[in-house]
Amino acid sequence: MKHLSLAELSPQQIAALKSQAIETPSWGYGNSGTRFKTFPWPGAARTIWEKIEDAAEVHRLTGIAPSVALHIPWDKPTKADGSDRGAPVSELDWAGLAKFATDRGVRLGAINSNTFQSDVYKLGSLAHPDAAVREKAVAHMKECCAIMEITGSAELSVWLADGTNYAGQDSIRGRKHRVREALSEVYSSLPSGSRMLVEYKFFEPAFYFTDLFDWGAALTHCLALGPNAQVLVDLGHHAPGTNIEAIVSFLLDEGRLGGFHFNARRYADDDLIVGTTNPYELFLIYVEIVSALNSEDRVAKDAASKIAYMIDQSHNIEPKVEAMVQSVLNCQEAFAKALLVDQEALRAKQIAGDVLGAHRELYQAFQTDVRPLLAELREEMGVPADPIAAHRSSGYNDKIASERGSADSGSGYPTE
Amino acid sequence: MKHLSLAELSPQQIAALKSQAIETPSWGYGNSGTRFKTFPWPGAARTIWEKIEDAAEVHRLTGIAPSVALHIPWDKPTKADGSDRGAPVSELDWAGLAKFATDRGVRLGAINSNTFQSDVYKLGSLAHPDAAVREKAVAHMKECCAIMEITGSAELSVWLADGTNYAGQDSIRGRKHRVREALSEVYSSLPSGSRMLVEYKFFEPAFYFTDLFDWGAALTHCLALGPNAQVLVDLGHHAPGTNIEAIVSFLLDEGRLGGFHFNARRYADDDLIVGTTNPYELFLIYVEIVSALNSEDRVAKDAASKIAYMIDQSHNIEPKVEAMVQSVLNCQEAFAKALLVDQEALRAKQIAGDVLGAHRELYQAFQTDVRPLLAELREEMGVPADPIAAHRSSGYNDKIASERGSADSGSGYPTE
Amino acid sequence: MKHLSLAELSPQQIAALKSQAIETPSWGYGNSGTRFKTFPWPGAARTIWEKIEDAAEVHRLTGIAPSVALHIPWDKPTKADGSDRGAPVSELDWAGLAKFATDRGVRLGAINSNTFQSDVYKLGSLAHPDAAVREKAVAHMKECCAIMEITGSAELSVWLADGTNYAGQDSIRGRKHRVREALSEVYSSLPSGSRMLVEYKFFEPAFYFTDLFDWGAALTHCLALGPNAQVLVDLGHHAPGTNIEAIVSFLLDEGRLGGFHFNARRYADDDLIVGTTNPYELFLIYVEIVSALNSEDRVAKDAASKIAYMIDQSHNIEPKVEAMVQSVLNCQEAFAKALLVDQEALRAKQIAGDVLGAHRELYQAFQTDVRPLLAELREEMGVPADPIAAHRSSGYNDKIASERGSADSGSGYPTE
Amino acid sequence: MKHLSLAELSPQQIAALKSQAIETPSWGYGNSGTRFKTFPWPGAARTIWEKIEDAAEVHRLTGIAPSVALHIPWDKPTKADGSDRGAPVSELDWAGLAKFATDRGVRLGAINSNTFQSDVYKLGSLAHPDAAVREKAVAHMKECCAIMEITGSAELSVWLADGTNYAGQDSIRGRKHRVREALSEVYSSLPSGSRMLVEYKFFEPAFYFTDLFDWGAALTHCLALGPNAQVLVDLGHHAPGTNIEAIVSFLLDEGRLGGFHFNARRYADDDLIVGTTNPYELFLIYVEIVSALNSEDRVAKDAASKIAYMIDQSHNIEPKVEAMVQSVLNCQEAFAKALLVDQEALRAKQIAGDVLGAHRELYQAFQTDVRPLLAELREEMGVPADPIAAHRSSGYNDKIASERGSADSGSGYPTE
Repeated sequence: MKHLSLAELSPQQIAALKSQAIETPSWGYGNSGTRFKTFPWPGAARTIWEKIEDAAEVHRLTGIAPSVALHIPWDKPTKADGSDRGAPVSELDWAGLAKFATDRGVRLGAINSNTFQSDVYKLGSLAHPDAAVREKAVAHMKECCAIMEITGSAELSVWLADGTNYAGQDSIRGRKHRVREALSEVYSSLPSGSRMLVEYKFFEPAFYFTDLFDWGAALTHCLALGPNAQVLVDLGHHAPGTNIEAIVSFLLDEGRLGGFHFNARRYADDDLIVGTTNPYELFLIYVEIVSALNSEDRVAKDAASKIAYMIDQSHNIEPKVEAMVQSVLNCQEAFAKALLVDQEALRAKQIAGDVLGAHRELYQAFQTDVRPLLAELREEMGVPADPIAAHRSSGYNDKIASERGSADSGSGYPTE
Repeated sequence: MKHLSLAELSPQQIAALKSQAIETPSWGYGNSGTRFKTFPWPGAARTIWEKIEDAAEVHRLTGIAPSVALHIPWDKPTKADGSDRGAPVSELDWAGLAKFATDRGVRLGAINSNTFQSDVYKLGSLAHPDAAVREKAVAHMKECCAIMEITGSAELSVWLADGTNYAGQDSIRGRKHRVREALSEVYSSLPSGSRMLVEYKFFEPAFYFTDLFDWGAALTHCLALGPNAQVLVDLGHHAPGTNIEAIVSFLLDEGRLGGFHFNARRYADDDLIVGTTNPYELFLIYVEIVSALNSEDRVAKDAASKIAYMIDQSHNIEPKVEAMVQSVLNCQEAFAKALLVDQEALRAKQIAGDVLGAHRELYQAFQTDVRPLLAELREEMGVPADPIAAHRSSGYNDKIASERGSADSGSGYPTE
Repeated sequence: MKHLSLAELSPQQIAALKSQAIETPSWGYGNSGTRFKTFPWPGAARTIWEKIEDAAEVHRLTGIAPSVALHIPWDKPTKADGSDRGAPVSELDWAGLAKFATDRGVRLGAINSNTFQSDVYKLGSLAHPDAAVREKAVAHMKECCAIMEITGSAELSVWLADGTNYAGQDSIRGRKHRVREALSEVYSSLPSGSRMLVEYKFFEPAFYFTDLFDWGAALTHCLALGPNAQVLVDLGHHAPGTNIEAIVSFLLDEGRLGGFHFNARRYADDDLIVGTTNPYELFLIYVEIVSALNSEDRVAKDAASKIAYMIDQSHNIEPKVEAMVQSVLNCQEAFAKALLVDQEALRAKQIAGDVLGAHRELYQAFQTDVRPLLAELREEMGVPADPIAAHRSSGYNDKIASERGSADSGSGYPTE
Repeated sequence: MKHLSLAELSPQQIAALKSQAIETPSWGYGNSGTRFKTFPWPGAARTIWEKIEDAAEVHRLTGIAPSVALHIPWDKPTKADGSDRGAPVSELDWAGLAKFATDRGVRLGAINSNTFQSDVYKLGSLAHPDAAVREKAVAHMKECCAIMEITGSAELSVWLADGTNYAGQDSIRGRKHRVREALSEVYSSLPSGSRMLVEYKFFEPAFYFTDLFDWGAALTHCLALGPNAQVLVDLGHHAPGTNIEAIVSFLLDEGRLGGFHFNARRYADDDLIVGTTNPYELFLIYVEIVSALNSEDRVAKDAASKIAYMIDQSHNIEPKVEAMVQSVLNCQEAFAKALLVDQEALRAKQIAGDVLGAHRELYQAFQTDVRPLLAELREEMGVPADPIAAHRSSGYNDKIASERGSADSGSGYPTE
């Protein structure tokens, strides 16, 4: 008995697989850790230039990771001597950075604002009780919009670390109003044609209340802001048991799913390699996307076609580049399986109320081993049939380890 | 050192306490159980008439439980001989029922539809793949609207048991569309001046996907339906760790908090006596309500003033009437404590960024022992200072036990 | 490229697959439901005789479900006219029941005690504050031991519904002592060579405290009882996020894993078809078992070889027999994949600290599509290559539906 | 109506309150943060000497925080010039440190080992696949035992950050064996009369499997090690919904509860001020302790009398000293309320099966406002009646802020 081969797929399915695009995050190539410890990885990227090199390596290996998300201010292309550190963004070498990326086969992607690592953000940024702090945060986000204008980035990814640790610490409604007002101001600075992706998170770093605590909270703000404000779903930012594919489906149907931050969680926001804790869940999320893409419902179909797929992970103990390649491949596998679902047969069994028949119709796509199929696809796309093996034998890791050395250790996230 | 006394409260605070109103549910007076077993309670109410008697007893003891929620079809005032069982609702003795209630000092409250106990609802009601089933469910809800017209009920409480047990069993988006369409039809039948309260639930009885799975899902529908569709927050219907007071605050601020189903949960939808698993959480919910009531924000203040407070519990091992008295008292205690928060002092500390000072400003209200204060209040209101003691010594339980006997046991919820 | 075929497996792997044995539960063939509603299934088994017929059908289709777990008193082989309902178990027709099973190719398996459906168990059974209730429960379990003597059952499965709903309701330590004493008495009545399997559960039907609340609680009792008391792991009885395979591994290593109750959960004790909410988790559990079976550690290997594999599910909306066939197949698939793990290669990568390499070594076994392989295996075993298709085309469901009809509906679990 | 006063307590109750002792952790006085950011606090302690000063301030204010837990190597009393940094512990100035503490009214308490901040611990410490790493970790723990000999510390607190992030990364059973062997070696080095407290944790920093994942895992090891190995319960280290007081009760009853790490959690290991997320839970834990202390069961009573009460928190946004004072007061309040439970009345209602009566018997102790009572107690003990107010007006914070300044910021935990 033979495995499914590429020849058995429709042109549409093949085209979908070839045009899949997963954005990798610059910060996933540097050292990161838990609050207890950051273990330095030999060759971990230290600068935005090195991060782009690594991202390009991932794209070279997979063919479906054509862009890199930037984190501001970490990824500002400042000079090595630091002489332009406080300069206006318009004076930085964005053109050089873009060219550096293009030369390596990738492009600059979403801009991620950072309003959690300055000392003034201890009690919040956009929700801070002090107007001066809010203004600083808004100014930073406007600076991000200015960068988008220059780089041509189509998405501003907004994650707020805002929240409180104790009941009573601050007013929930008061904070909501402050966030709304600040987001409105940023929204009005969005470059034309771009979107603001509003991320929500169940908890962390705040442990009593998070200002954007779930998709309902994020959506409420987006509806007030306007059509270019959409919800960003980070797979790790949900309460235990949450049915994420249901959220995805609802947001698509409301035309408000802006994008994903892919990763895997079992407990908290574990930031593991996407698809490793529960590969079935990742498949089911892609099933909803494919269903919307194939739908005659214009709103859902349109929203699905514009989803920004991005990885957001913290590789604490893994080889950074290999972890990213694996992440991209896991998304590819999930997407391929979702494409295999026979939508018509599925719908027929659903309508007939055939509970287990319909379930199996879906499940058999998941059971299918798509590795041979994807190996074929990759060869057609001119990338290695086995990207992991190719990476391991490429010498890339040794090269960067010897060139870059080990960054200092510490704990937690990178800092400015 | 003396306890806080009523004289130290403002007239506004005292008025708020005296006008507190918690609706008790007819179904809380009958036998109920888990899927494993329903333990019969001697004297448990068997008919709507007996349920109203019990509700009146709770109001007589507490003074703040003036209405009874009805569950249709369980609580239709059909004749004892069953001769009018299938009759149109307009032919049933609602006037008699209303008078029976009024004579005992209570009134008929919210109407709760039931679309989960007919055999046809196995795969859903408003979301069912079969249009005929959806029509049956819509017709039932329209019948509930008709009852509201007759009884003057101001709220239609809609809880859907709809959902799926297996991925693929049905289309998430398809079901969403069906629910939307069916709710719209019901919404257009709402009596003038009344509201539809849309309840959400994390899970159960469906175990993979629930059609109204969280407040975001419910709100999405309400926004599409119109201003008289509002969200009903059942305290037991959330994922582990969910910050319910944040949801309450957001919904108030959006003018879409319709009401509560009070109960307590630790694990799933445990339906225990409200305030018993985490009394602090109940206090914090009331804190948000009091904050909105005192606010100058018109939308939140208005929404807070119209909240429908309702208990929804399953007394599996407790004496039914005593459990309900306890529930009402727990709400009263939480409300009283929330009223004690010094809003101005709190705001000042919040604005100053005094994390622990602000927290303590809130917490000291919770630490206060309001039992003496509430005993005073009750005496002023003409109800027993200690309602539980009064109930225990009243002989009410013995009386109903001897009059009503023990209903048959079984398992689970009451059935038609 | 070809699928893995049976010929590529070692004789040991093939033997393991052929000798796999999953016990199905008599109660899985009857109607069951949630506390809200039991939907009647046409042809659902009403008697132990019909349940055995259904179990035999599952074994006929799969070849790996050779035994049926009994639930006492539900499954006592009393006469249809009820004339021997209260008779000593020794006078019931166990021989007839055993022969009925054997004639159909299956045998009687574990005996499950029931101490939760009598009215006296409202506040507990073995943990009840009243000694008379505890004695009744102990007597029932001794009766179960007596049945084991007659039927030759090797396992007494003990699940206690005991617990409390409110803090203070009863003494946690007091209840622990009562459970210990009662279990000791039952333990001393175990037939020679048999085991007591002590099940634990996170919650339900008790919602504040469960007397056997986790594997630590169960193990503590087992250690005090003796070597024939072992822990029973029900997959649905854990807190959110719990790593069940770690518990399995620890219990195997301590020689105290007695058996499994297989099912699937996402939220609470959802009792869905095993492997449907997270097939990867089921695979990982089997990986631990296979690891122990292949181990040179005598204790773990021995424990793994004696595991009692049992299904414990509640088929609320599914066709009962088909759901059970699916459950057995899901276990077979997980076991087959686990057997494919290259233990040596895995160990080498683990020892080398190759985090992602080791993970992939495991994961590739999960990615493998074992359906063709298992179809081959089934043909060798003389059962249908596609048991579901065979079942659907067999007419079995129509036959039982017409013979048995629909039992009355209700809600919850079956009752005596 | 008057508040409960000290005069109404029994001499035993008063003695219990006066002798309450909560150990504060040296690391709670320094800066700490999440993985995203550590916000520097002006005056945060930078050395063990400053930490002891702060701990002494907490004891001066509360009278019930007489000892300080040390974390090795952070708290080694090395010279300021670093000249003795690598010296054997026997050559360090422990006597000076002890005298420094004694002079300020406190003493050195439990020794906490640290096997998570060296670069070699990336894949574990006692469970690491590489024997050399395990030896290093064991050697460190033996060094801790040597310090205990010198300082007279009675407890070695062992928390392992060990675990894995991906299924397959390492062998669960293999790691268990390694941990067992290493702990045995450390156990044999314990100073006479001292105890090893084995801490467990649900997750973090490992996100797939933690080697000591729950109390059952920790207890299993302790039973194998010997009577001086006992379980350490950190309130933040449990799965959602876990009934911690049940674990406390079981461990007391088995004579294996060694101590607590107090803090509060809502989501993960949030490390908030103990008692702030759910004060009722803290009360219920103390209820179990008081119940054991009052018990005639020798094992439980003895275990309860030897509990090591320790705080383990991360004050990310709070004033460090004030946060610690608040923590100690919260424990005092919970203990006082637990002491108020009328054990006899409670038992009578429990035995009578009076579900709600028994619950209220417990709950009314929680409802009682013990602040006036504790103010009296403090005055008798010669400490401020209102420790928080006393602290705020003492000028202590200003003094340390000006003396110590702000340490550098960063993210996460302190590092060596």
